[in-house]
Amino acid sequence: MVFGVSIIGGSGYTGAELLRILGMHGDVEVLHVTSRELAGTPVSGRLPNVTGTDLSYEMPEPGMYLDSELIFICVPHTQAMGMVPDILGNSRVVDLSADYRLNDRGVYEEVYGVKHTSPELESVYGLPELHRDQTVGARLVANPGCYPTGAILALAPLLEASLVETGRIVIDSKSGSSGAGKKPTDFTHHPEVAGAVKPYRVTDHRHIAEIDQELSLISGNRVRVSFTPHLVPISRGILTTCHVFPDDPGLDFRGAFEQFYSDSPFVRIRDEVPGLLGVVGSNYCDIGMELDRRTGRLVVVSAIDNLTKGASGQAVQNMNIMMGLPETRALGAPGLYP
Amino acid sequence: MVFGVSIIGGSGYTGAELLRILGMHGDVEVLHVTSRELAGTPVSGRLPNVTGTDLSYEMPEPGMYLDSELIFICVPHTQAMGMVPDILGNSRVVDLSADYRLNDRGVYEEVYGVKHTSPELESVYGLPELHRDQTVGARLVANPGCYPTGAILALAPLLEASLVETGRIVIDSKSGSSGAGKKPTDFTHHPEVAGAVKPYRVTDHRHIAEIDQELSLISGNRVRVSFTPHLVPISRGILTTCHVFPDDPGLDFRGAFEQFYSDSPFVRIRDEVPGLLGVVGSNYCDIGMELDRRTGRLVVVSAIDNLTKGASGQAVQNMNIMMGLPETRALGAPGLYP
Amino acid sequence: MVFGVSIIGGSGYTGAELLRILGMHGDVEVLHVTSRELAGTPVSGRLPNVTGTDLSYEMPEPGMYLDSELIFICVPHTQAMGMVPDILGNSRVVDLSADYRLNDRGVYEEVYGVKHTSPELESVYGLPELHRDQTVGARLVANPGCYPTGAILALAPLLEASLVETGRIVIDSKSGSSGAGKKPTDFTHHPEVAGAVKPYRVTDHRHIAEIDQELSLISGNRVRVSFTPHLVPISRGILTTCHVFPDDPGLDFRGAFEQFYSDSPFVRIRDEVPGLLGVVGSNYCDIGMELDRRTGRLVVVSAIDNLTKGASGQAVQNMNIMMGLPETRALGAPGLYP
Amino acid sequence: MVFGVSIIGGSGYTGAELLRILGMHGDVEVLHVTSRELAGTPVSGRLPNVTGTDLSYEMPEPGMYLDSELIFICVPHTQAMGMVPDILGNSRVVDLSADYRLNDRGVYEEVYGVKHTSPELESVYGLPELHRDQTVGARLVANPGCYPTGAILALAPLLEASLVETGRIVIDSKSGSSGAGKKPTDFTHHPEVAGAVKPYRVTDHRHIAEIDQELSLISGNRVRVSFTPHLVPISRGILTTCHVFPDDPGLDFRGAFEQFYSDSPFVRIRDEVPGLLGVVGSNYCDIGMELDRRTGRLVVVSAIDNLTKGASGQAVQNMNIMMGLPETRALGAPGLYP
Repeated sequence: MVFGVSIIGGSGYTGAELLRILGMHGDVEVLHVTSRELAGTPVSGRLPNVTGTDLSYEMPEPGMYLDSELIFICVPHTQAMGMVPDILGNSRVVDLSADYRLNDRGVYEEVYGVKHTSPELESVYGLPELHRDQTVGARLVANPGCYPTGAILALAPLLEASLVETGRIVIDSKSGSSGAGKKPTDFTHHPEVAGAVKPYRVTDHRHIAEIDQELSLISGNRVRVSFTPHLVPISRGILTTCHVFPDDPGLDFRGAFEQFYSDSPFVRIRDEVPGLLGVVGSNYCDIGMELDRRTGRLVVVSAIDNLTKGASGQAVQNMNIMMGLPETRALGAPGLYP
Repeated sequence: MVFGVSIIGGSGYTGAELLRILGMHGDVEVLHVTSRELAGTPVSGRLPNVTGTDLSYEMPEPGMYLDSELIFICVPHTQAMGMVPDILGNSRVVDLSADYRLNDRGVYEEVYGVKHTSPELESVYGLPELHRDQTVGARLVANPGCYPTGAILALAPLLEASLVETGRIVIDSKSGSSGAGKKPTDFTHHPEVAGAVKPYRVTDHRHIAEIDQELSLISGNRVRVSFTPHLVPISRGILTTCHVFPDDPGLDFRGAFEQFYSDSPFVRIRDEVPGLLGVVGSNYCDIGMELDRRTGRLVVVSAIDNLTKGASGQAVQNMNIMMGLPETRALGAPGLYP
Repeated sequence: MVFGVSIIGGSGYTGAELLRILGMHGDVEVLHVTSRELAGTPVSGRLPNVTGTDLSYEMPEPGMYLDSELIFICVPHTQAMGMVPDILGNSRVVDLSADYRLNDRGVYEEVYGVKHTSPELESVYGLPELHRDQTVGARLVANPGCYPTGAILALAPLLEASLVETGRIVIDSKSGSSGAGKKPTDFTHHPEVAGAVKPYRVTDHRHIAEIDQELSLISGNRVRVSFTPHLVPISRGILTTCHVFPDDPGLDFRGAFEQFYSDSPFVRIRDEVPGLLGVVGSNYCDIGMELDRRTGRLVVVSAIDNLTKGASGQAVQNMNIMMGLPETRALGAPGLYP
Repeated sequence: MVFGVSIIGGSGYTGAELLRILGMHGDVEVLHVTSRELAGTPVSGRLPNVTGTDLSYEMPEPGMYLDSELIFICVPHTQAMGMVPDILGNSRVVDLSADYRLNDRGVYEEVYGVKHTSPELESVYGLPELHRDQTVGARLVANPGCYPTGAILALAPLLEASLVETGRIVIDSKSGSSGAGKKPTDFTHHPEVAGAVKPYRVTDHRHIAEIDQELSLISGNRVRVSFTPHLVPISRGILTTCHVFPDDPGLDFRGAFEQFYSDSPFVRIRDEVPGLLGVVGSNYCDIGMELDRRTGRLVVVSAIDNLTKGASGQAVQNMNIMMGLPETRALGAPGLYP
């Protein structure tokens, strides 16, 4: 049996990545992919990689998703919450926007500067490695942001066991430009990115709220992380370097990670701190760590592809779990090397 | 039923790419991968992308391949011809070196500067789009070079029908650095490549002989192409821009290409000339063309991933055909976009 | 004595590059740099490299340039021709737009699709290596396009002496993204450029008209070149690979180039075909060549920085010549290596 | 009057950068540049950027430097200390190796794993912004490492005034590949670097000792920093992101920096945290900072060109100071933008 699914707002990079992955799935069929801008255009003619599909982008219309078991929402933040209540009556939803990621909708309103129009809807923060059980059978899953995926996975085992100083958690992330989306801006204009490294949103990136939420939840204490992202001249990938200070440097940190992720097929605990090479193009999150005996610092590094594990791959992982399919279906391909 | 295959000389990039692809295959199992340098090292610990395999690199030993239906040979040019005669008695071979690519072994000796030690062996030039029929059931397939794959596919339909001046075929190729292999050299040292474009072997690249051979064969006339490669600051991908002068500019060139490749699942004739984006990471060869009415020139552009369609992906494609498996098995994944 | 100069439309990359170079000049002072968009902003706060200047961008006003000996015009094509007639009464002009590059204004109107509003103005095509004598004392110099600079310099000595077939001149150029200007577009969005190579305007780039004009002029015959540009993932630099077919392959081509450029301080005839490394950041044009004895083809390669020799450096070189200053003033710095 | 200077071990990137800068100097002339490997080769034929010099690389010979007022030593660590004692009798020295950077030669021996053979020689740590006074007239200046230059400049004003927790200083650096030198290695092989980010020497980079030394000196207390470098896919540039925790977040940190560097022409305190764009190709160190009010963290970011301010530019700056020349001579050029 094949499930029908649809993609709302599919003209951007997360939509493209969903189409790439779902085309290899086998258990689901994409019924609709909507885009106001591209309505009428064949997907094959628009994407340079995906061919052999008869899909065309469609103008969104009321009722058009009634045939879809599950809907992926790829519209910008603040637009998803207007659509989800209607859809949920009929279909499950994986929302790739930020609209349902923050459990405290008041925090959402503060961070995103708008009133939440459906704060009452129950949602699951879709990081399966932390919330797999609630995801099974969930109706509405809020797919995590790209930076939070890398950061939370690199820190959760430490926070769960209260192993580190919570006031001195430094997260220094390096992201490729595709994380900024498909719309051209000064920030992502090629001559301004090539051959350079740029810090941005140095102390106030919106993703901080997600990281704080999840690490606070798992630790049982209020955690506030010190997060700074950088744009590096690559297209895909986020490397997250976490600098933390354990209370007891002698503990078996690697062991804690291995145990924490023993049932998580997409987290690989590495012997050495990972780079992005070999991860890009895959749904894996590679994690490695090293203790700095001079200063008592623990460095934990995670590497993901921001469009796969950091967005659309994770969305499919969530879909697989929600629908009772094998978690790794369509997601097992290794990254590219070199 | 699962076939056993092995890889000789698997420590380089073509070996790594074979391991990546074969791990997704299903109908074959890799029994041995040899490397004198890495013997004893687990593959998972060495490659940053491929995990979940118990394989270790092994020291090559006589008789170790007797269990293998087919052997991929990834050793450098001039080393393969010493191994193939022994192996062929028991297993089929896809040779990724240049040793059996040139049908006239005398030309091989001239171009590679060594005596051929097994000139009598019958081999098929493994560009399936041209020689699929001979490949079915073949014992020894010579896997084409990366530049020739892109160039021959971009020109074969024109030469078969004798549509262009054969003395004025200009092929200007742009390749990523992985084509130069895994061994560090001055030529591929990152600071010397980043932010630059470098022409090299401007008139005498060894791959010219393969291009000449195949285009001469298909045209029935002696063809000598004008070929110049360039190194561009990317890791994977070859874009080949062919400038040719048709006798009759009014012909339906696109139609000729579509018909020529109508049974070839990995060649996609595009509405516009392709770039590398969307092809890298896949086994596709995208081709597009445009007529220059001012000068009577036809520009044909092909785009491939040099490690996939230009090497290991094509090797698996050949294996599939040789063994009667579906040609696209393990090779259908789209490239990455962006 | 210090000359006053001004820049009209200085907010883009050519304006920025002029400010970088003129700040090191000594014999000229920039009096005004205008930008409607940035009026009121200090230059130091806007450009990440140029500091220590009190200049602010100004709103253009009638009469504001009366104090300027020479004006650099950096506005888009079709906008310069409306300004130049007024300015010329008082100041000399180096126009970096295309408006006065094509001597036959009818060809301009065809290529740029607009009526020329001051076709009668006398202008010099500002490639000093070809037109140095007319540039001395000229009132209006049309600064060449970036591609034409690289292409014409690579071919002029051959065409002047009628050494090659004029119907089979293939020019295959590879350019960095800064050539597309400062305005973000889909074409130059970082994720669409990084890790890829893209052909574009494969047969109909507007710069062809300039190349044809200058090569026809110098050869005395009508020349029509076959030109195709490619975008490569670098910020600065154009490598131009010319494939031509000499009538007599035995000639001393290098000697012809050395003689032709013996008085040109910015053209360096190299022993080997050049890459972009070492040229970027400088006003040099490096040229090398190699004969393909197999096919009778001559490959001539030129390397320039598209913003320096291909735009603003050449504009300063023209200014130096026009004003009787040493041609190399402010332009002698070597490029960066690596 | 023109001073004669020489370069020992000039075949690498720091030697090339010295030749680029000194060629623009005017007050000094390079008399000798030695290289065992390249002896006899003209500099112009070897470097792609520097031309118009008659210099050839020479085999080092005893006594050959007697005509040189000052010698730049560019040999690898542990080789310089064998040469310096002899040279100092006649010439001043700027040593670009690490041999005299660590004032406590015992620390040197520990970090570099060799016995120091001239521990008694008096040297100045050549970061002019901290030690300008001692540099004037010094005989032996130890030119700082690239990472320490960026890190120390970003932190010195805070440590001098004891404004931050010294046990929680996190320094996360991102460097281009040219910092690894000219010799090709697996680490800097282009396909392994392009499109990726790689942490390395995550807790034990040798440059830590320099940073600790200088920050301890200026603070009057023992400081031990938590330092982690990353390789990013660019050729030149180091961006250093410092995460520190001030005791009093309300202080005027920017003011402290501006005052500290008020006499330092190459340090620019920026309104916003800088990126590498605009700094590469120059001798500037751009610094910016931002307070994270949520967590009490101060983020200080510095940007330098690792080969200029991080190596050879700083060496020339030291030379200028040692010889009583203007500090900025030959070093005032802005970086490239874009």
